[in-house]
Amino acid sequence: MNILKKEKIPLKELIGGAQHFLYKYTITGSSGGPKVYIQASLHGGELQGNAVILSLMEDLKHLPFKGSVIFIPLSNPYATNNKLGKYTFGRFNPNTGDNWNRNFIDLISSKKINLTGFCRRYLKESEATIREKFQDFLSKEFKKLEIQLQSNNELHDNNKLNLILQKASCSADIILDLHTGPSATEYLYCATRSIDEAQHLHFKHVLEVDHEFAGAMDEATFMPWVHLEETFERLGRKISFNFHSFTLELESEEGFSLSMARMQKDKILNYFKYKKIIPGKSSPKPYIKEHLSNYITIFSPHSGLIDYQVDLGKSFKKGDILGTIYQFHNLEKTDSTKYQLPVIAAFDGILINKCPSSAIQQGMELFQVMKKSNN
Amino acid sequence: MNILKKEKIPLKELIGGAQHFLYKYTITGSSGGPKVYIQASLHGGELQGNAVILSLMEDLKHLPFKGSVIFIPLSNPYATNNKLGKYTFGRFNPNTGDNWNRNFIDLISSKKINLTGFCRRYLKESEATIREKFQDFLSKEFKKLEIQLQSNNELHDNNKLNLILQKASCSADIILDLHTGPSATEYLYCATRSIDEAQHLHFKHVLEVDHEFAGAMDEATFMPWVHLEETFERLGRKISFNFHSFTLELESEEGFSLSMARMQKDKILNYFKYKKIIPGKSSPKPYIKEHLSNYITIFSPHSGLIDYQVDLGKSFKKGDILGTIYQFHNLEKTDSTKYQLPVIAAFDGILINKCPSSAIQQGMELFQVMKKSNN
Amino acid sequence: MNILKKEKIPLKELIGGAQHFLYKYTITGSSGGPKVYIQASLHGGELQGNAVILSLMEDLKHLPFKGSVIFIPLSNPYATNNKLGKYTFGRFNPNTGDNWNRNFIDLISSKKINLTGFCRRYLKESEATIREKFQDFLSKEFKKLEIQLQSNNELHDNNKLNLILQKASCSADIILDLHTGPSATEYLYCATRSIDEAQHLHFKHVLEVDHEFAGAMDEATFMPWVHLEETFERLGRKISFNFHSFTLELESEEGFSLSMARMQKDKILNYFKYKKIIPGKSSPKPYIKEHLSNYITIFSPHSGLIDYQVDLGKSFKKGDILGTIYQFHNLEKTDSTKYQLPVIAAFDGILINKCPSSAIQQGMELFQVMKKSNN
Amino acid sequence: MNILKKEKIPLKELIGGAQHFLYKYTITGSSGGPKVYIQASLHGGELQGNAVILSLMEDLKHLPFKGSVIFIPLSNPYATNNKLGKYTFGRFNPNTGDNWNRNFIDLISSKKINLTGFCRRYLKESEATIREKFQDFLSKEFKKLEIQLQSNNELHDNNKLNLILQKASCSADIILDLHTGPSATEYLYCATRSIDEAQHLHFKHVLEVDHEFAGAMDEATFMPWVHLEETFERLGRKISFNFHSFTLELESEEGFSLSMARMQKDKILNYFKYKKIIPGKSSPKPYIKEHLSNYITIFSPHSGLIDYQVDLGKSFKKGDILGTIYQFHNLEKTDSTKYQLPVIAAFDGILINKCPSSAIQQGMELFQVMKKSNN
Repeated sequence: MNILKKEKIPLKELIGGAQHFLYKYTITGSSGGPKVYIQASLHGGELQGNAVILSLMEDLKHLPFKGSVIFIPLSNPYATNNKLGKYTFGRFNPNTGDNWNRNFIDLISSKKINLTGFCRRYLKESEATIREKFQDFLSKEFKKLEIQLQSNNELHDNNKLNLILQKASCSADIILDLHTGPSATEYLYCATRSIDEAQHLHFKHVLEVDHEFAGAMDEATFMPWVHLEETFERLGRKISFNFHSFTLELESEEGFSLSMARMQKDKILNYFKYKKIIPGKSSPKPYIKEHLSNYITIFSPHSGLIDYQVDLGKSFKKGDILGTIYQFHNLEKTDSTKYQLPVIAAFDGILINKCPSSAIQQGMELFQVMKKSNN
Repeated sequence: MNILKKEKIPLKELIGGAQHFLYKYTITGSSGGPKVYIQASLHGGELQGNAVILSLMEDLKHLPFKGSVIFIPLSNPYATNNKLGKYTFGRFNPNTGDNWNRNFIDLISSKKINLTGFCRRYLKESEATIREKFQDFLSKEFKKLEIQLQSNNELHDNNKLNLILQKASCSADIILDLHTGPSATEYLYCATRSIDEAQHLHFKHVLEVDHEFAGAMDEATFMPWVHLEETFERLGRKISFNFHSFTLELESEEGFSLSMARMQKDKILNYFKYKKIIPGKSSPKPYIKEHLSNYITIFSPHSGLIDYQVDLGKSFKKGDILGTIYQFHNLEKTDSTKYQLPVIAAFDGILINKCPSSAIQQGMELFQVMKKSNN
Repeated sequence: MNILKKEKIPLKELIGGAQHFLYKYTITGSSGGPKVYIQASLHGGELQGNAVILSLMEDLKHLPFKGSVIFIPLSNPYATNNKLGKYTFGRFNPNTGDNWNRNFIDLISSKKINLTGFCRRYLKESEATIREKFQDFLSKEFKKLEIQLQSNNELHDNNKLNLILQKASCSADIILDLHTGPSATEYLYCATRSIDEAQHLHFKHVLEVDHEFAGAMDEATFMPWVHLEETFERLGRKISFNFHSFTLELESEEGFSLSMARMQKDKILNYFKYKKIIPGKSSPKPYIKEHLSNYITIFSPHSGLIDYQVDLGKSFKKGDILGTIYQFHNLEKTDSTKYQLPVIAAFDGILINKCPSSAIQQGMELFQVMKKSNN
Repeated sequence: MNILKKEKIPLKELIGGAQHFLYKYTITGSSGGPKVYIQASLHGGELQGNAVILSLMEDLKHLPFKGSVIFIPLSNPYATNNKLGKYTFGRFNPNTGDNWNRNFIDLISSKKINLTGFCRRYLKESEATIREKFQDFLSKEFKKLEIQLQSNNELHDNNKLNLILQKASCSADIILDLHTGPSATEYLYCATRSIDEAQHLHFKHVLEVDHEFAGAMDEATFMPWVHLEETFERLGRKISFNFHSFTLELESEEGFSLSMARMQKDKILNYFKYKKIIPGKSSPKPYIKEHLSNYITIFSPHSGLIDYQVDLGKSFKKGDILGTIYQFHNLEKTDSTKYQLPVIAAFDGILINKCPSSAIQQGMELFQVMKKSNN
């Protein structure tokens, strides 16, 4: 049986003395191997990743495996507890509007760290050695940064959470950030550097992300490695680090199903086989891939009640009706086009995400779709 | 073809000059008959009733029918527009917390109207004549009340909306208030006085409501008739007025589906046949009925993420697990009962409603169930 | 030095394992005497009472006094932590809309407790003895009720909080529930039975409350004594129990000032002198009193931005302009009455409360005023 | 008398048919002169700017003046109407969290417009001519952009509002964006290019903003001119355009006072004298200036209730107590430092902004201060 360790990380005290903690579970296998980091619910209402963590932990407690896996379920408990009506107001800080997945930092750029010295020192070392040294380096830098911000009362809610998660994950080789869409089919955000790995994760839809930084966890975790590779290249060594970071979108928010989680867990276990973390032969699966620039948000052109007409995960053609918006102040008109307004696809694509409510205001996100690039 | 008339009722001006209106559509048949009133979306996020109205109106524009039908779709546009995150914060006034379906008034009691004079005058008249006279009487009283409240700046948001809807509906013989649950199977609230009519509405689950007043639209509309019958009885005449008011719960909030609406509309049309509003033979259907006192809310005993284990509309037995709440701060425990907390049924029943989110805090509404009375 | 004891009462666990507690502090004096109960912040954003508790506790730790004082500061921590934007969304449960001060229960009525037996048993006892016995009786009943509700998963958020506070306070002779208005001058809610006591509390404005129940803490605590007195009276003994319950409104929500608290504390200490809790001579002060039915809410007749023109606590005459609402979509009009809409007093009165925002929608609470009665 | 023109700009339709408009008022003087643009309430709860607009319009209707002034009061009516409890949830989109003052665009950069051609054509023209030509150019580009976004359903709420305001303001020479802090003293954001002008605006506190873009209105309006000047410089002509854009912070949100507005209006009229828009001699006033990098946010190190101890606009020294946070779960401790936590200034400064609530969670914005630099 593998070793399971729990660490309790103080996150946020509340008025009146209650305190939110993060619970970091580490399962260590019987022998050395990749270090994996998995978190769920960074957006407070995206619950399904926690079921996947539960399911994975049940397996990994007993399965022979190499390396270690860190789990942080409920990685944003403050947000998960933010109920308004029946629903979870968990996507952004209710106090400031800051999206909980936008205040991570590109440590190397933001602290203006020059990696040349580091790379010179380890120029001749093996990939594995450099990887480990760099993980130590990142770890120290995050600790310093946290102390500095804390001592000056510069630590905003979002920064603190994001910093704690970066610190907890910076020693990992593989990062899986478990999200869901509002009302979505399964899809995967994958950096260009990891695009070949993705076929072992068995997601049907893959969005390819450039090596650029916009504040999200996946970007924040792979950017240091991009900077490191670039610095080595400038010094004449071409090296690809065995570091991969993915954002997994596990269908729809507010839902939590163990039976669905077991199927989703199997996809991750297949990837673990591929990475030699657990025994067994992994099988690749083809996926539909588009570059992130082809992941298009369709904003509602009107206000009204929408009847959604394309199912999640389904293809549509240019000219198809994606949904019909009904307006109720013109029902006396004999011409039904006065109150019945179709939202028509401007291109071929696949429906990935839709708004979980049919009460729609002009300018709200209605759909997110993968636009087909090759037509 | 029948006559369709639209009336635009000013509801609420907004800061900056925009204005919400109610749109009251009246379709009048080729000959006299029952007067029906149908409204939807009193709770802002309960959308499906609007689809049923749309579908009914399409039919009634052309169908031969007797009497008249008033429709008020989107009867609470201010609430329907109150979006927080993706969802509609539409159950209660965001300013005061007042539930939009609790500020109706029992006109006769609240204005201390003594009906003896009215009943004496019409003691010998036919039921139909008295009904019409009483509807006129209610109409005048509502107008007076509105003017009085308005002139003294005593008109609160909720009162105003509720008053307008009562005024618009008080001339009707049949009232259908179209709601949905948060996440629900179809069910019907039906006053004892109308319990035999319910079998023509084809709802599978019926909650029997006493002739008492607690602020809701259905109660507010049938109570005047209860008072009238009681007064006649005191004067020695036993009379039942052909007045019926129902609350129809059309599954789940935030959803809007025309295809589902067409099936739901057929139930209403069957009732219309029974009431001789449209031609054709109605068929009764048996239903499962419980008194409202057996409609039990189960509040969550714990906080955590729940995996729901009984489907909406399904029966369960005492001792069945309705759902399991998972807590993520004790996952290292070998004893899974430390983090896996079942919610066990304390009696036999049918699951009518559940919370649409799996992120549950202690003390939140988890389920609403029909408790089986005969065991 | 007096004895200070702390009790930690579990209130509500949150998702992720954090837990809200209530902290009940009891200071016991050197000898027997009245039992006082003081709570603050039942509405989450009404903070000033906590400053008063702090200030009182500092004094009472050292002052010679008789009897005991229970303090529950931050009596609703869940609500105080519910931030939306910068402000506290603390007046009602964000999940259900239930006002936190409306779900207390009139224990005797709601549990249909017949007090005749109790009164017969103690018919000849002293007021002090009966008072103590009745407090024990209430205490036991609340414990039973809590266990019953909890075991059946019938305990809603609001019920639980309200029940805990009733249980904690039911052994007291004097209850001070510390609130604030939204933006208010100081005022006091006082039951008819306690109206003579009020002059020792030194509040300038007093609202007289009937012996009726509408769900609030003050009513819920004095109603059992009203029922008890009525029952004794039916048995032929006229007795007034030395029990008093007040709601103190300590100016405006969101504010917290120790220097202001020291002045407010002195008012309570004067009352303590009057009740012989602390040594010294109390002085009565006259107040302006109106019956609660003359506490009038003025709802906004229009939407717009309001310039408030009467200061809190000030008198106004019928015809005075209380504020002017400006609308910005008609500014081109030469006739300024098209965009400049005065709110005119319909009677003489005193301004007690106003809305803390100048952005006003039609139908919102604008002012609460004491209407001058003609005596 | 000057000419006053009103334009009604459709902004956002609501579910149910209501529609928000912007009202753009243009007052044109008797002869040519600077074109001024003034808007208020971009953040929905920041109301005072509307009072200033009202007050300015009253004067300008009659005052002899040169040029023209555009006013857009209530420039974000959707946000001003978003009430939660008594307060306005108006700083960010409740649907997405997007701050209403962060989605403006730096048109030249974002559309990758190369200005070299434009500058070559007008290389020898006067500053005034080029200014006018460039304003026309911007105007056309904004129109094109709006059509493009609209036709593809790419127009998000925030983008649409921001685009409309940029389009409305892009022909102006002077832009005044009227804001308030949450709870603030008066202060001014001023670009380096306009720093000398600021002394005629009579604000006591000035924050100097670099010529960089971060999404706000002031930056979005001055950046095109920065790009234009840079392009001219590359072509060998050093030219400073007479274009200035300021953000005026008019004390605290939720407030609306005409009497205060009259004093604030006089500051703007003094600037108008300086710019020769109205007759009279302007007087400069010294101000306290710091670079934006010295505008420091102090986040709360603890949760609790804070007693604010420095007044808005006042100086403090390193080591001063800015406020004391009280925690109520340790009141039994004899050592008061267990529950009484001072927030101590780490440097000399001036208090500009504080949180309008004393209920503070760890990590919330507590203060914004001007840190004294050593010059």
